[in-house]
Amino acid sequence: MRFDQITIVGLGLIGGSIGLAAKARGLARHVVGVDCNHTLRARAIETGVIDEYCSDLPSGASNADIVVVCTPVNTIADTILSAASLARNGTLFTDAGSTKGNIITAIGSRLPGVVHYVPAHPLAGAEKNGIEHARADLFENRVTVVTPTVWNALEEVSRVEQFWMALGSRVVRMQVEEHDRVLAMTSHLPHAVAAAVSGITPVEWLAVTAGGFRDVTRIAAGDPALWAAIFEANGDQVLASLELFRTRLGEFERLLMNGDGAGLLGWLSEAKRVRDALGS
Amino acid sequence: MRFDQITIVGLGLIGGSIGLAAKARGLARHVVGVDCNHTLRARAIETGVIDEYCSDLPSGASNADIVVVCTPVNTIADTILSAASLARNGTLFTDAGSTKGNIITAIGSRLPGVVHYVPAHPLAGAEKNGIEHARADLFENRVTVVTPTVWNALEEVSRVEQFWMALGSRVVRMQVEEHDRVLAMTSHLPHAVAAAVSGITPVEWLAVTAGGFRDVTRIAAGDPALWAAIFEANGDQVLASLELFRTRLGEFERLLMNGDGAGLLGWLSEAKRVRDALGS
Repeated sequence: MRFDQITIVGLGLIGGSIGLAAKARGLARHVVGVDCNHTLRARAIETGVIDEYCSDLPSGASNADIVVVCTPVNTIADTILSAASLARNGTLFTDAGSTKGNIITAIGSRLPGVVHYVPAHPLAGAEKNGIEHARADLFENRVTVVTPTVWNALEEVSRVEQFWMALGSRVVRMQVEEHDRVLAMTSHLPHAVAAAVSGITPVEWLAVTAGGFRDVTRIAAGDPALWAAIFEANGDQVLASLELFRTRLGEFERLLMNGDGAGLLGWLSEAKRVRDALGS
Repeated sequence: MRFDQITIVGLGLIGGSIGLAAKARGLARHVVGVDCNHTLRARAIETGVIDEYCSDLPSGASNADIVVVCTPVNTIADTILSAASLARNGTLFTDAGSTKGNIITAIGSRLPGVVHYVPAHPLAGAEKNGIEHARADLFENRVTVVTPTVWNALEEVSRVEQFWMALGSRVVRMQVEEHDRVLAMTSHLPHAVAAAVSGITPVEWLAVTAGGFRDVTRIAAGDPALWAAIFEANGDQVLASLELFRTRLGEFERLLMNGDGAGLLGWLSEAKRVRDALGS
């Protein structure tokens, strides 16, 4: 698979890594970057993430074979709609948003018929955002979830899946509702929980923390603006996950209050069984 | 600092690592191990963790200059009381328990006056327990909290602190109540939260997880029996931490239900500020 031009909109960790991976793997003759931040555009050129930049979206998208939108989840739909209005016939669009339902709903049937948007979510975020952390191997051994819409033809879905695979990731195809429900539990809830633990910890107690605290709270260092947008975009599913979590933690609390050692052992063993199934 | 004989009771991750560190650092002429599990005793000899083993506690402790008790928190007090009855004059005792108040209360003033117990807690546990994970450098750049009791003379405290420093750790001296309150928040609560997230996640969804889930839930793979004992031993403080946590997560939930983006941003930013203060 090879494209004449890939355009990346949003030059952060994900956008930057797509540029590096595309170039390292010879995936495009030409990689164009679009970002409203001049400093980021200049750095993307310097570090070899892109070959050329455009400061305005329409000109960045107009000659692209594929446009990958890597902006925060609350701006992806508008970005795609703006770019699509000037894109040429047959241009593929995909994105890297952590939520999918809000974007697909916002775009609805408003895209011109000549361009095709296949939603995607590479599970490759990190607590360290920013193009300075971009890596050509970010997607290797990671999963990209693709959530086709009712407007997608099978061929477009297949090409976008091949694009994400060509960057190094494995592709899992899911229904959009399933994606948002599963990710609420496996990504958004853990983030909220990590931030809650971190948020109640007095800074002067950090000297008396070890690996457990460090691991549990690591993602709380993520970008608050990116995450506030994700939580709002997937609010109903996040609230449903919180309800399950609160019930589960309530069981723990009751076992502890009742001094039920055997119950605690069982409760902890169920958690261990799941975590052991994941591996280290 | 050099001892003629160090006796380690409980040959798991911590006990095994103490043996390896003591030998690597020339801290003792002779390292003796005590464990009720024959296989562990044999493995400790094979892997150079100890020089000799005893199957019964009194004979293992009788010639020791220092006895380090590394058994689960619900057995440490009894172990120390049993071993102390046959220890020679001047023997130092310390331990590696994650809780301190329960042990100090259970021992009370029941130790013979000729032996001295200085409670300690090396913050060096991991989700991978067992002597097969023991490492000579486990304590390096880690903190050991020492919580002197009213029965301790300053000289004993100082010798035990030097022992833990000689293994490579930094020592922080704390009141026992403060230790149990702080550790409930920085260690026990994160464990409960990690186990709750893990416990509600369907195994078939693990394929759609990334680094965040992996980090948040890592310690849920820890030994359920060890952790059930820790939670029970520090129940009141764990319940108090849970209350703070639930309140904090409740704030998040209300912000999300109200669609309060600015509030979410502030809530997440407070968490980031704390986590950034810790470093990666």
